[in-house]
Amino acid sequence: MSAEQQYDDCSLQIRDEQYMRKALIEAEAALGEGEIPIGAVVVCREKVIARAHNLTETLCDVTAHAEMLAITAAANQLGGKYLNECTLYVTVEPCTMCAGAIGWAQMPRIVYGAPDEKRGYSKYAPHAFHPRAMVTGGVLKEECAQLMKEFFKGKREES
Amino acid sequence: MSAEQQYDDCSLQIRDEQYMRKALIEAEAALGEGEIPIGAVVVCREKVIARAHNLTETLCDVTAHAEMLAITAAANQLGGKYLNECTLYVTVEPCTMCAGAIGWAQMPRIVYGAPDEKRGYSKYAPHAFHPRAMVTGGVLKEECAQLMKEFFKGKREES
Repeated sequence: MSAEQQYDDCSLQIRDEQYMRKALIEAEAALGEGEIPIGAVVVCREKVIARAHNLTETLCDVTAHAEMLAITAAANQLGGKYLNECTLYVTVEPCTMCAGAIGWAQMPRIVYGAPDEKRGYSKYAPHAFHPRAMVTGGVLKEECAQLMKEFFKGKREES
Repeated sequence: MSAEQQYDDCSLQIRDEQYMRKALIEAEAALGEGEIPIGAVVVCREKVIARAHNLTETLCDVTAHAEMLAITAAANQLGGKYLNECTLYVTVEPCTMCAGAIGWAQMPRIVYGAPDEKRGYSKYAPHAFHPRAMVTGGVLKEECAQLMKEFFKGKREES
């Protein structure tokens, strides 16, 4: 499955949008905390087992991206470090660091919202995921991108 | 400065080897704990401000690589998330994930020991570091590689 594909399966599209809305709730929480608004959830067998949002400012830590925190939380929840039955939903295309972590966790499916042309893995680390991982991009991408625009517009007005 | 360069500056080589020995002590600690033996230290203005070793098994977390833990610890120590006056010493070439984190932290210099042909950033994410970052590879590479060989030999004998 390639990024930004058309769905053949309507029920899959509905489910992906439902889970992406949960990731968007996380992204909105990040925005409310003055963080770059990116949220993620990890789903295992139709259950959300972890949710997280970007906390790089709060934790003063460049590694505290939504995906990284969600992967750590999901592994804690499952009691195993490989998330090879899980899907990651994240509002913005993962960066190189997060794509590397997703690869180590052997995640078989990654669904993202808005593309990130500047920092996205597809430009800088296109082979970071597990070789059989399936990727779907562009799910609710307008909503996901809108939060990012709001954040950076606010930052420009501050300065 | 390119990877595996010859040193023009003898005092720099001596310092790099001294700090790499501290990273090796961390790697040995990892080996003693049944972890893949990789260690890292972060040096700022000639002082070690963070040291860490791989803890992926202990923490049940694929993100707990030596470099990631060292970056988080260094940022805590400095009270700022950008490590743009720091050098990272790590016993094995960083992977895609760690290279991404090193890039986010804007680290200006990275020194590693043994190359990692299978998972190293230079193959999978060669542009992950800050564009002006200087990289020196191959420092004490035999000692660094030897620990990895011991670990994997032990694993083969177990199975």
